[in-house]
Amino acid sequence: MPHPNSSPTDAVARLRRDLAPDRVLTEPADLARYAHDDAEWADFTDPLAVVLAETVDDVAVAVRAAAASGLHVVARGAGTGLSGGANAMADSIVVSLERMTRILEVDADERLVVAEAGVLNDDLRQAVAAHGLWYPPDPASHRISTIGGNATTNAGGICCVKYGVTRDYVLGMTVVLADGDVVRLGRRTAKGVTGYDLTALMVGSEGTLGIIVELTLKLLPLGGREDRAIVGSFDSLEAAGKAVAAISSAGIVPSALELIDRNCIEAVDAWQSLGLPHGVEAMLLARVDEVGAAGEALAGAMAERMARADALTVERGASTEEADRLFLARRLAYPSLERLGPVLTEDICVPRGRVPEMLARIQASARDHDVVIANIAHAGDGNLHPLIIAPEGDGAAKARAKLAFDRIVDDCRALGGTVTGEHGVGLLKLPGAVHELSPRVVELHRAIKLALDPEGVLNPGKAFPA
Amino acid sequence: MPHPNSSPTDAVARLRRDLAPDRVLTEPADLARYAHDDAEWADFTDPLAVVLAETVDDVAVAVRAAAASGLHVVARGAGTGLSGGANAMADSIVVSLERMTRILEVDADERLVVAEAGVLNDDLRQAVAAHGLWYPPDPASHRISTIGGNATTNAGGICCVKYGVTRDYVLGMTVVLADGDVVRLGRRTAKGVTGYDLTALMVGSEGTLGIIVELTLKLLPLGGREDRAIVGSFDSLEAAGKAVAAISSAGIVPSALELIDRNCIEAVDAWQSLGLPHGVEAMLLARVDEVGAAGEALAGAMAERMARADALTVERGASTEEADRLFLARRLAYPSLERLGPVLTEDICVPRGRVPEMLARIQASARDHDVVIANIAHAGDGNLHPLIIAPEGDGAAKARAKLAFDRIVDDCRALGGTVTGEHGVGLLKLPGAVHELSPRVVELHRAIKLALDPEGVLNPGKAFPA
Repeated sequence: MPHPNSSPTDAVARLRRDLAPDRVLTEPADLARYAHDDAEWADFTDPLAVVLAETVDDVAVAVRAAAASGLHVVARGAGTGLSGGANAMADSIVVSLERMTRILEVDADERLVVAEAGVLNDDLRQAVAAHGLWYPPDPASHRISTIGGNATTNAGGICCVKYGVTRDYVLGMTVVLADGDVVRLGRRTAKGVTGYDLTALMVGSEGTLGIIVELTLKLLPLGGREDRAIVGSFDSLEAAGKAVAAISSAGIVPSALELIDRNCIEAVDAWQSLGLPHGVEAMLLARVDEVGAAGEALAGAMAERMARADALTVERGASTEEADRLFLARRLAYPSLERLGPVLTEDICVPRGRVPEMLARIQASARDHDVVIANIAHAGDGNLHPLIIAPEGDGAAKARAKLAFDRIVDDCRALGGTVTGEHGVGLLKLPGAVHELSPRVVELHRAIKLALDPEGVLNPGKAFPA
Repeated sequence: MPHPNSSPTDAVARLRRDLAPDRVLTEPADLARYAHDDAEWADFTDPLAVVLAETVDDVAVAVRAAAASGLHVVARGAGTGLSGGANAMADSIVVSLERMTRILEVDADERLVVAEAGVLNDDLRQAVAAHGLWYPPDPASHRISTIGGNATTNAGGICCVKYGVTRDYVLGMTVVLADGDVVRLGRRTAKGVTGYDLTALMVGSEGTLGIIVELTLKLLPLGGREDRAIVGSFDSLEAAGKAVAAISSAGIVPSALELIDRNCIEAVDAWQSLGLPHGVEAMLLARVDEVGAAGEALAGAMAERMARADALTVERGASTEEADRLFLARRLAYPSLERLGPVLTEDICVPRGRVPEMLARIQASARDHDVVIANIAHAGDGNLHPLIIAPEGDGAAKARAKLAFDRIVDDCRALGGTVTGEHGVGLLKLPGAVHELSPRVVELHRAIKLALDPEGVLNPGKAFPA
């Protein structure tokens, strides 16, 4: 609620006074445009103003203005989040970091990059590739999402199964705190344990403890890998799931192990005519990246596990066109399905051995609640994204979709899973998080939030159940 | 300070009442034995009692008894810490986890292990190897240190250069909080972002936020690697350092890249007669673990970088006896040097490219302060352990050693380094941490400590400058 001594109007006036004119938006259309991220189903309210920050100081100015008037600050990158973490709320100012796109330093010797939070994942990737370096984290949104957003949600991606998630690459950061102070956290060295790991605490905290405005990211050498693709088709989701479990328990670590189901394949093909295979229920798209004979052997072992799990077909090749088309289909699945109606995106993660059972339960949910569920999955991590689709304007279908969503979360927990693998709690997973985190652990969250943001300025109500 | 309503004697009486008799020690000799870890130079005071916890509940009982009497709890594993993080203080109870040695579960399919905090690193390693699994973190103390101690200090080791540190393998944990409550943090799945990353916050927090009593650790497949050793000898530390920088900037990621200097080699050989080479100033011990031709190529590239950095000799082989002897020497360096007198252990980490200059500065410190400094280093990470030795009972030498220690810390910071790469702040690095962490960042530490341990029960005064 607004501070008694300073009104929301004061805060907006202060923003106009302290920031360049083109950096403050208050037109209704602009406010609506910045009111939510890509979580179609979560609550949002138009903010009072949008700050298009161009510098760290712009962010600090906005936070101070909001704090002085008892307003809230919702920071966002490209707004591609899928849990509502960047959805605006009453009495809030949205601070967009999309204009903070400078890559400040690429250090090839130390294999690190320093960049502003608004740099797109792909732009970062290309910039470091020019120095022979590789930034692995590759969320499906990599062409349109920012590294700041990736860090604040601890985004995953396709390569996680072998190369880890965003947090594994964040060495340090610059953060604007709840009172507008700016601090440096972390390090530039390969190792370091000075003090608490506040960098790790900030990663995934969804802008509730501080606003990440600059990142120091660890990189890997670009070369030294050789892609081999292995593609299997299956006549049921469970069969594909069994192949995943078998690959995992054989100790095989692929560089990608993705699943797409019939609904996805058909939606993508209807939109983009990629000539994808029809008539199969699920496909596994795998890659290994070991060099030479080791890569061959690993690809062979993967293919064997798929065949033994009753794959209809298994194809191998050095990054075949077919595999490329399928990985493209994997990336296009989400926008393709959005054409069919609002998509309620799940993001559960179960132990790899439970993938077959979880896929069966998802199908049961679709059947029992009479909704269409398309499945894409980082199957090799047990991270499944059932996408529940309700036709636009069909309120009853939407209600059924919500029931299916909740049941999938329950099933995931029953199988020892976690309610969000890589999208974050945001707003959509608050009910699931209540059950996953014990009351005492929630209390720890609250205590830390209060310690770092006593006035509740930064994105309150997100990331953990309050 | 003791709580007004309950005396230290009450607390000890309560421990005797609530715990089995053999789990509470109060004999002076026992108190002295548990009064400090392996940081010879840091302050310590005998505790009032030592609890040899056998269960999670024993730990909780001890914490509650201490909290009720306003005492402090210092948790420890094997006491092999090198920064004084487990040193006891006035009005404290030491809780040793050394008897909590159960391995609760090895899940080969999910590649994880659940174990109590007191399990020795090597015991864990062997237990999971029987299932075809590998736990990479390998501090030099791996035969004698516990996984709980490793986690609470975020221990590194030789394989970090390629495989990361302890925190990269901690999926979840059970923690006893400052009021004796027991919570589960983290997950068992490959990925997960439900709530703040409290697991990462606990790792490296030196028992100041909670006592880690059980760990869920991620494992890798045991097989699929092939060791090749590359050993270079050099006529100066700087030349060896230049080879390290060249290897790093060439984008080569070895599975080990260690440095030992003449002082270490001679001390080890004098003790163990391993037949080590004499007359060289420094040696680099490297391994790569890629399979087949890729491994050969990488080993060749490493050898070439060493040769170009003017190595006196470069030898290659598939894990030669010579290399094994040298890696053994690397591990024996610390105990060998301790025979010569109390060792003040440095643990700085600089950018890899600054390793040559840092080594030169360390030599200058030895010369200017007239002390013996032996160097062992995880050179590939830029993590250097200059070991400063003062003869037993020589107060003047000890004072000079302290000056050299401080100057090395200053030099490290001047080169963009961090004051502790893997040993932790404990007590020894508090002065260095003051300069590395900004006042506002220290304030964040204090706020988090206060949020999780408002009464200051858990190991106060460690991990960050108060």
